[in-house]
Amino acid sequence: MSQNKGGRSRSEGAREAILAATRQLLVERGYDRLTIEGVAALAGVGKQTIYRWWGSKSALVAEYVTHDDTLVADAGVPDTGDLQADLESWLEDAIARSNSQPTAGLLRGLVAAAAEDSSVAENLFASLSGRAEQALIARVRQAKPVSAETARITVAAITGAIIYALLTNRPLPEGSAAVLAGLIDGGLSRE
Amino acid sequence: MSQNKGGRSRSEGAREAILAATRQLLVERGYDRLTIEGVAALAGVGKQTIYRWWGSKSALVAEYVTHDDTLVADAGVPDTGDLQADLESWLEDAIARSNSQPTAGLLRGLVAAAAEDSSVAENLFASLSGRAEQALIARVRQAKPVSAETARITVAAITGAIIYALLTNRPLPEGSAAVLAGLIDGGLSRE
Repeated sequence: MSQNKGGRSRSEGAREAILAATRQLLVERGYDRLTIEGVAALAGVGKQTIYRWWGSKSALVAEYVTHDDTLVADAGVPDTGDLQADLESWLEDAIARSNSQPTAGLLRGLVAAAAEDSSVAENLFASLSGRAEQALIARVRQAKPVSAETARITVAAITGAIIYALLTNRPLPEGSAAVLAGLIDGGLSRE
Repeated sequence: MSQNKGGRSRSEGAREAILAATRQLLVERGYDRLTIEGVAALAGVGKQTIYRWWGSKSALVAEYVTHDDTLVADAGVPDTGDLQADLESWLEDAIARSNSQPTAGLLRGLVAAAAEDSSVAENLFASLSGRAEQALIARVRQAKPVSAETARITVAAITGAIIYALLTNRPLPEGSAAVLAGLIDGGLSRE
């Protein structure tokens, strides 16, 4: 690979430009209207470069997902000893992020891509929701004597509520974080 | 419109063939790879007919959603007086349906279409999840003294858990219906 003055290879620069263009077009157009041609034009590379490196639109989006740090920044769950308060705090942040642009548009594009393509679904799960899910499951099991499977089902309910609101274009109202945290804190108390 | 021997107009027959082809290709290819050309070929009509009647792929899918009775068949929620048992029974049925083909493939295609296009999202919500949601909200509020908004958030959690499992390709395990019903029956008890 040839090196430019900044020490990065020319192809590394092209790769970053392509992944950034993929993100921008996912937000602006969604997955269905995202095209290799459009990404190439925005990134200033030939479309053959993208086809040579990734082969397909879904492979490009699947790789983009694993390289966007903003998608995974808040996987950590607070631990103050108060499960209701900790889940509420995590949920407030997650709901606010999912309601704000460009994250909302990006998530909608990724949900569409995941629904269409299992390799995107697996990468999305591994790098985004899976990390948050593991952190939530661990936090729930610190506080409640439930199996990993029960914790996973429970966590799917709160993660799912956020995705469902996004999909149906009906943002969760104020106070949702407290209600959802209460389902887990209260609903698991009986086991 | 000209009438054929069965009494249906020729264009009504074409319309039904087009909507049936839309369903089949959503299951087989998903929304992204669904094309007007493909629907036209499968339905045995010219693609100009589809463009004239619907204008776009998303408009076609948005109308298909409102015409598939199998999508809305089980919107009713049992009422035996036992909320946990009734929600569990509704969830067992909904989870089994979402895990079986061709419904799983069809739902994935519709989720992708809804994520891409707000008119599809609105129709999908109005004719499928909205109906189930209203029935679930009513059933929850018969048993628990909660606001409509709290009931809606709660119901989004169980609907969302099913969609999240579908999207991440990880079917909900045996026993999930009881866990999810327990979140609502137990988690709302404290209000």
